[in-house]
Amino acid sequence: MQTPWDHRFAQRTQRMGSSAIRELLKLTEKPDIISFGGGLPSPDVFPKEEFREACDRVLRDHATQALQYGPTEGYLPLRELIVRHTARYGIEVTPENILITSGSQQALDLLGKILINRGDRILVESPTYLGALQAWSAYGAEYVVAPMDEHGMTMDGMEEALRSGPKFIYVLPNFQNPTGVTLAYERRLKLIELADRYGVPIVEDDPYGQLRYEGEHLPSVVVLDSQSRDSESCYRGNVIYLSTFSKTLAPGIRMAWVVAPPEVIRKLVQAKQGADLHTATFTQLVSYEVARGGFLDRHIKLIRQVYGERRDIMLGAMDAYFPPGVDWTHPEGGLFLWGTLPPELNAADVLKSAIEQKVAFVPGSPFYPTGGGHNTMRINFSNASADNIREGIARLGRVLYEKMGQTPV
Amino acid sequence: MQTPWDHRFAQRTQRMGSSAIRELLKLTEKPDIISFGGGLPSPDVFPKEEFREACDRVLRDHATQALQYGPTEGYLPLRELIVRHTARYGIEVTPENILITSGSQQALDLLGKILINRGDRILVESPTYLGALQAWSAYGAEYVVAPMDEHGMTMDGMEEALRSGPKFIYVLPNFQNPTGVTLAYERRLKLIELADRYGVPIVEDDPYGQLRYEGEHLPSVVVLDSQSRDSESCYRGNVIYLSTFSKTLAPGIRMAWVVAPPEVIRKLVQAKQGADLHTATFTQLVSYEVARGGFLDRHIKLIRQVYGERRDIMLGAMDAYFPPGVDWTHPEGGLFLWGTLPPELNAADVLKSAIEQKVAFVPGSPFYPTGGGHNTMRINFSNASADNIREGIARLGRVLYEKMGQTPV
Repeated sequence: MQTPWDHRFAQRTQRMGSSAIRELLKLTEKPDIISFGGGLPSPDVFPKEEFREACDRVLRDHATQALQYGPTEGYLPLRELIVRHTARYGIEVTPENILITSGSQQALDLLGKILINRGDRILVESPTYLGALQAWSAYGAEYVVAPMDEHGMTMDGMEEALRSGPKFIYVLPNFQNPTGVTLAYERRLKLIELADRYGVPIVEDDPYGQLRYEGEHLPSVVVLDSQSRDSESCYRGNVIYLSTFSKTLAPGIRMAWVVAPPEVIRKLVQAKQGADLHTATFTQLVSYEVARGGFLDRHIKLIRQVYGERRDIMLGAMDAYFPPGVDWTHPEGGLFLWGTLPPELNAADVLKSAIEQKVAFVPGSPFYPTGGGHNTMRINFSNASADNIREGIARLGRVLYEKMGQTPV
Repeated sequence: MQTPWDHRFAQRTQRMGSSAIRELLKLTEKPDIISFGGGLPSPDVFPKEEFREACDRVLRDHATQALQYGPTEGYLPLRELIVRHTARYGIEVTPENILITSGSQQALDLLGKILINRGDRILVESPTYLGALQAWSAYGAEYVVAPMDEHGMTMDGMEEALRSGPKFIYVLPNFQNPTGVTLAYERRLKLIELADRYGVPIVEDDPYGQLRYEGEHLPSVVVLDSQSRDSESCYRGNVIYLSTFSKTLAPGIRMAWVVAPPEVIRKLVQAKQGADLHTATFTQLVSYEVARGGFLDRHIKLIRQVYGERRDIMLGAMDAYFPPGVDWTHPEGGLFLWGTLPPELNAADVLKSAIEQKVAFVPGSPFYPTGGGHNTMRINFSNASADNIREGIARLGRVLYEKMGQTPV
């Protein structure tokens, strides 16, 4: 269908990223495929009954407010709940530091809108979260990268990267998407020290921080930054912190938040007014009703148990079924692990064969902002059942053995 | 609080519009003020019980889907329902022409993102919807204007405006926000003819089209455009059409849609992926459950009755209480009417005095993209009760009499 719109698209649409991977992932949505592709939480841990009761209470007692327009900043009791929630993880802020967003993806988009001029450099991990690249490339961002190893963002080239004048540093310190890797404590301190020295602020994206299955909780970058100057843990504003209910309550409500200095919140509010006026009042009130009274913390314990078991099953199945020469990370939390194939293999080719065997994952190269990673793969362990994890990894193992010309022992 | 973000805001933040009017409107949110300021639907017509039942059904029968991530395009049964719904108003499309958005404000933002390069001209009514200006100015839009009269966008300067090469025309043909005016049938035909001649496509924003309280329904611009070439009413794609459930179900669910050619939908989907991944699955399933089975059409009849009465009461009160020399529109539908004061009065000054008398409206000048309208005011008649409408207009009448140095007869 030819229309007059066809030659009117803005230049930025050329930077909005191909949908090749999206098309490939559509293949994996067939019901007979065991997919480790999506970043999907498990419906087994959705608090369905709590949502049903919360909707009932909200529509019985607060229907007028829940169904009406609301403030762009978000529903105040929810912002206050988030203040209390984050305080227990060491982030001391007030509601004027909180903006409710329609998922963390919107937070990334709004940050791009208020911060990125075309050609601005952003210092990101390589690989990093694809959604951030997608949001920011539309505003003309360019990227300088800090390669990842098994302890997170490496610090070796950091000073050189900072000297190139990035607008900000983007870091996912806990169980990173896509690699599952956690930024080591010493590196967190080093990152803050270098960021301070070069005057470059930080965006910390932390959707999975509470989903830790082993080891000790590490303080967030925003917390360490606040402690670095004062004896009291008072928010300094150098670090913008993002988190979400998508992995702890449910992603289908699109409920997340930004912690930022008031001046940044004011700009984000202006941008959000133009973007969607406000996040749905109804789902904000429902989220508040579900989360309050300690439910959120109790529920997170259940999720840790379920996902921790699935991670263990997947790691065990990989040990059993994957050929020598394939490596993978051992994440201490989160939803993903990261496989590395021998360099002569291409993960996109492997995926095609895998789909024929009714199993799927995400090839890693799109997560690399400046190229690379052809032989890497992101594998989700939260969504599939224990049986499907074993069966899917066994199938994937057979594909890998065949691709590598080996025979299972 | 000084932070390293302060000198890092993008240039576009300077174009994101002042919040002066927003600050003023915050004053009107006090409970003792009768506010005709907001564009708020009345909670008296929120289908609260239907929402409660719908939530219950969705969380009983479809909780896994409702709480999980979903496709960016939107929930297919909802898109199909919208296809059937719009077909009854003469717009014949398929689900691949429909994108679900988080309120129409998001549709405006995404259209800006995929269409507007910095410096692009948009042809808009003057005055026009403030939210469109807010969304598009962030992308660097400039405006050429077609002045409004009591029959809508005037056609006199249209050819000259079209010769200046606007990217598209933005029109709110039914009960426009802010003026309440409806674009006359002949002008709709003329607009389509001229748009065709100059090859400039149209964005038609129609949040209120179904809320008509007198007179005959006029076919949408998108329908007339499709009929202009063929005998059959087949969607040609020249007109992108926006509508919403905000004024027919409830605004607090942020549920709206775009009708556009598939190629435009594809670009919008890419942009929406970066903006918020998708509109909340849960509210999409709930909206579908509430709207289906004919409820939407039945409910719209109730809204027409309630708002039609309020409009009549307000018009009657203005006749009774406003001084000679003040004019106002007589909208056939929608939520607003538009007052024009004598040119020596400034509506912002009048508002300050009105707030002292515990009544509020919105001064009209921010709705004029290229200036003007200092003596105009937008007055909402849907949100206040009959008694409050009479009392509020009486108070406003006293303020106007005083400002104009007259004495009520």
